[in-house]
Amino acid sequence: MELLSLFGTADQKTRWLAPLLEGEIRSAFSMTEPEVASSDATNIATRIQRDGDHYVVNGHKWWTSGAMSPRCRLLIVMGVTDQDAERHRRQSMILVPTDTPGVDIVRSTSVFGYDDGPHGGHAEIVYDNVRVPIGNLLGEEGEGFRLAQERLGPGRIHHAMRAIGMAERALEMMCRRTAARSTFGRPIIEHGVVQRWIAQARVKIEQVRLLVLKTAWLMDTVGNRGARIEISAIKVAAPEVATWVIDRAIQAHGGAGVSQDHLLAELYAVARILQIADGPDEVHHMAIARRESRRYRESVAA
Amino acid sequence: MELLSLFGTADQKTRWLAPLLEGEIRSAFSMTEPEVASSDATNIATRIQRDGDHYVVNGHKWWTSGAMSPRCRLLIVMGVTDQDAERHRRQSMILVPTDTPGVDIVRSTSVFGYDDGPHGGHAEIVYDNVRVPIGNLLGEEGEGFRLAQERLGPGRIHHAMRAIGMAERALEMMCRRTAARSTFGRPIIEHGVVQRWIAQARVKIEQVRLLVLKTAWLMDTVGNRGARIEISAIKVAAPEVATWVIDRAIQAHGGAGVSQDHLLAELYAVARILQIADGPDEVHHMAIARRESRRYRESVAA
Amino acid sequence: MELLSLFGTADQKTRWLAPLLEGEIRSAFSMTEPEVASSDATNIATRIQRDGDHYVVNGHKWWTSGAMSPRCRLLIVMGVTDQDAERHRRQSMILVPTDTPGVDIVRSTSVFGYDDGPHGGHAEIVYDNVRVPIGNLLGEEGEGFRLAQERLGPGRIHHAMRAIGMAERALEMMCRRTAARSTFGRPIIEHGVVQRWIAQARVKIEQVRLLVLKTAWLMDTVGNRGARIEISAIKVAAPEVATWVIDRAIQAHGGAGVSQDHLLAELYAVARILQIADGPDEVHHMAIARRESRRYRESVAA
Amino acid sequence: MELLSLFGTADQKTRWLAPLLEGEIRSAFSMTEPEVASSDATNIATRIQRDGDHYVVNGHKWWTSGAMSPRCRLLIVMGVTDQDAERHRRQSMILVPTDTPGVDIVRSTSVFGYDDGPHGGHAEIVYDNVRVPIGNLLGEEGEGFRLAQERLGPGRIHHAMRAIGMAERALEMMCRRTAARSTFGRPIIEHGVVQRWIAQARVKIEQVRLLVLKTAWLMDTVGNRGARIEISAIKVAAPEVATWVIDRAIQAHGGAGVSQDHLLAELYAVARILQIADGPDEVHHMAIARRESRRYRESVAA
Repeated sequence: MELLSLFGTADQKTRWLAPLLEGEIRSAFSMTEPEVASSDATNIATRIQRDGDHYVVNGHKWWTSGAMSPRCRLLIVMGVTDQDAERHRRQSMILVPTDTPGVDIVRSTSVFGYDDGPHGGHAEIVYDNVRVPIGNLLGEEGEGFRLAQERLGPGRIHHAMRAIGMAERALEMMCRRTAARSTFGRPIIEHGVVQRWIAQARVKIEQVRLLVLKTAWLMDTVGNRGARIEISAIKVAAPEVATWVIDRAIQAHGGAGVSQDHLLAELYAVARILQIADGPDEVHHMAIARRESRRYRESVAA
Repeated sequence: MELLSLFGTADQKTRWLAPLLEGEIRSAFSMTEPEVASSDATNIATRIQRDGDHYVVNGHKWWTSGAMSPRCRLLIVMGVTDQDAERHRRQSMILVPTDTPGVDIVRSTSVFGYDDGPHGGHAEIVYDNVRVPIGNLLGEEGEGFRLAQERLGPGRIHHAMRAIGMAERALEMMCRRTAARSTFGRPIIEHGVVQRWIAQARVKIEQVRLLVLKTAWLMDTVGNRGARIEISAIKVAAPEVATWVIDRAIQAHGGAGVSQDHLLAELYAVARILQIADGPDEVHHMAIARRESRRYRESVAA
Repeated sequence: MELLSLFGTADQKTRWLAPLLEGEIRSAFSMTEPEVASSDATNIATRIQRDGDHYVVNGHKWWTSGAMSPRCRLLIVMGVTDQDAERHRRQSMILVPTDTPGVDIVRSTSVFGYDDGPHGGHAEIVYDNVRVPIGNLLGEEGEGFRLAQERLGPGRIHHAMRAIGMAERALEMMCRRTAARSTFGRPIIEHGVVQRWIAQARVKIEQVRLLVLKTAWLMDTVGNRGARIEISAIKVAAPEVATWVIDRAIQAHGGAGVSQDHLLAELYAVARILQIADGPDEVHHMAIARRESRRYRESVAA
Repeated sequence: MELLSLFGTADQKTRWLAPLLEGEIRSAFSMTEPEVASSDATNIATRIQRDGDHYVVNGHKWWTSGAMSPRCRLLIVMGVTDQDAERHRRQSMILVPTDTPGVDIVRSTSVFGYDDGPHGGHAEIVYDNVRVPIGNLLGEEGEGFRLAQERLGPGRIHHAMRAIGMAERALEMMCRRTAARSTFGRPIIEHGVVQRWIAQARVKIEQVRLLVLKTAWLMDTVGNRGARIEISAIKVAAPEVATWVIDRAIQAHGGAGVSQDHLLAELYAVARILQIADGPDEVHHMAIARRESRRYRESVAA
């Protein structure tokens, strides 16, 4: 929706954005590919080739989250339109209706043992000579990388906020459980090691929450591009806090913590995938380090 | 099987040990309870009450691993026979055939979304006025805690060995994957961060493997009791190494790492539950610290 | 100075606060004792006994920071006035001029190998039948613990701010050094592991800085007592970030990092002592956990 | 001594090895340079140039440990003899008597404020047109790198063993101290967090000790070259354990832990420098990763 509202033509908005905003249909973003290391977006191999009034899409994607839903009618596909262009100008995005001939939704991939249900499922999709009109291109040819950057910013802060919510919930569950049970003559919550987990969880959550708030404020004031590095920072930091807190909450629950009786193991799976999705931690670390170090490298060169 | 071979009567061995050794039937150990913090074994609430020539078992257990198998015919149940005895003499173990009236195998509990299949499943079981002959008692009344200690020693070293195997497999998968894919112009395996993971994984695995080998040698030479603290040490250390290595291997695989296409997420679930099952890390840390500190506390008191 | 301005009598302010504010003299706070674990303030053994118009101070203190300075003229001493009072009402604070007979400044204790110079040195002091007029008592008898809380709040946020400054400086030194030197054909700053350190350092610093700012705002709006737990949080979090960043900067400098040629090893010593001074991390973790868990324990009890 | 006994000529052994073995004199190894990142040994800039029957040494070294001792009579200097040779054949080692004209021992560098005394001090040395006879060359021209490898193997296992000794001592001090003092109504050693430190310390020490023992056995059976990677592993692992244990022991001691009254802060400084000296951790991680990953990279290439 963000992409369409920002970069869609009037026609595209009428046809797709309106029903999306009404909640009648859903869309999914199809970027990651099983055969290449997608953390380097220039590895993407799917081809989007012009053929008269159409583009022909050929490629193999997965982790197209949301595409398992029967209400998903639109796929936004990232692919190479010009192999010979400058690295960040090779790719474009195109709108592919789910029912276009050649679109084959193969299966859902699981996250740990969870398939994230019919609406949340992560689809593997083969695009085999999928033809769409040229009017389906989103933005200009070669703008795919730039558009992805625009989309991923807001997406990432949503993820970070959800990660904080998960961490809060896990901390509450940890406290509730350990207050209600005793070992060795005391409520578990009074054991020193558990107290340390609780204190560390609270201190970690407060810190990362403030960084997310600051980032949101930056996005509002200087825009997604200006907040790019802060977005990378919370993309790494929030899931790191969440996985840590959830993991300690699991430990405090004993066997119940990994079972279907509590949400914790499922929360862990969600938080853990956030360290991989939308660029793994390693890519964001590189971006943060690059900006941090830029002025020093220049001063050396000068 | 270990319990029966060590403590079973001739009758018990004939009836149960022989077919177990033949592989005709399977058994499961029923100790952990959903309503109490079982990490303190004195919390166990299941009652085993004498009634003439029978014992009557009432209680609620879970994580009875293996009991979901249709071939599982025997449950070894831990419960309180004398509430007023000294803390570690309250409990006993008793043999309960799976088909005894009152045994209700309710369901299987999952581990991070995995149910560990029909043979590995972890059963929740209600024992409702389950009557078995007094000859089914394993060992003497009040020996449950001692027998558990004997059983858990060998069980724990098996777990530690498996954890090392999992870590080795994950390391191999990490190397293989990162050697085969490239980002930013180089094979991933040549990126410094991944090299560090690989090096740290190898150093961790080598260390914990040697500690497991030493522990096995101690068990052979001074017995399970004499190796008790080393068993606690590997119970903590081996799953810690395994979860760390598997987690890094998942990260190195990207989305594939958490999916059903690679074993890694499932290995993680298995390694993670090992930090909880058979006594959570915290209980073993306490045991190790108690022995380490004993001499110093005595010297202070003296 | 904070204590005098908040709790001093008119006489005390005239005599001591004025020259302190003028910078003519300095004061030092004498609380920690070598013979007891002072992290539990109720362990303090120094006695302050009434004798007619005087109090007599007997005790053994150390880590009285600043007392090595020749300009230090005033010691604020914490000690027991009523052994039988309720735990937090036993202690009082008293003003002891440095030149009072019976005050013996024994030596300075070092932090790692640094003695923190003539002005920063940490004094060990014996108080042997030191007599001061009753007018030297700060506040009422039994208020020592409360006054200490008041003093330590502002002190702790100063420490946290300094810790952030140290972390920033170390990060800058790390970048500068690694940009200027090369190994294996590339500037060190471009090695993946160093990039990760830089990125992690930046993300850690940003988070803890925001928590310190929020805490400062709370102190201004709800007061030191209301911000008590946030003060504990930054007391733990800021030195943890600082020691981590400084340690990585040391590593990035090689041998130079631990030597007298760079400030890093000395910064490390300062940051490290902050994890101990004014209550070790463990005490603050307990306080944070206690507040976090209070509502859950009450809900269980109710 | 190891270098002389392995590679010295008969003359060199008579002149230097004999008095060294008698303890009459001492030697020091002069390799690291202040102006370059010596972790990449090919950066070394000191020149050793042939001039008739002499070699002329020009360079600037530091961390020449032991050279501050008045009994140090021999410096073994690493430098470039042939700038144009293959990377690992450029350097040679040469014997330089301390009293040779042009040798200027400038000062000692400190480690966290400790100068490691007159015998342990780390010397900074300027070599200014220092002339020694050609017979002083150790081994052949171009063998410096190989000889360094030979020397560093045994040196590293000594360091690892010392690190374990330091860790053991710190653990004992931690137990002794926390058993003797109480906070909040219990001996500190009974607090859960301290018990966890003690347990983790014991488990870490046991693991790394076994790896050092295995490495020693490998050095005896397959030689320094064959044990090269295991030597790298303990070079990294043993100081890591030592710094961790010593740091926790410092924390358990409170202010005393960083002071001159206990050995802990000084032990920390020694253990910490071991993560830098003789190749920083990062270089050893690279070596371990390279061997671990070799077979996978080959299988990909094939």
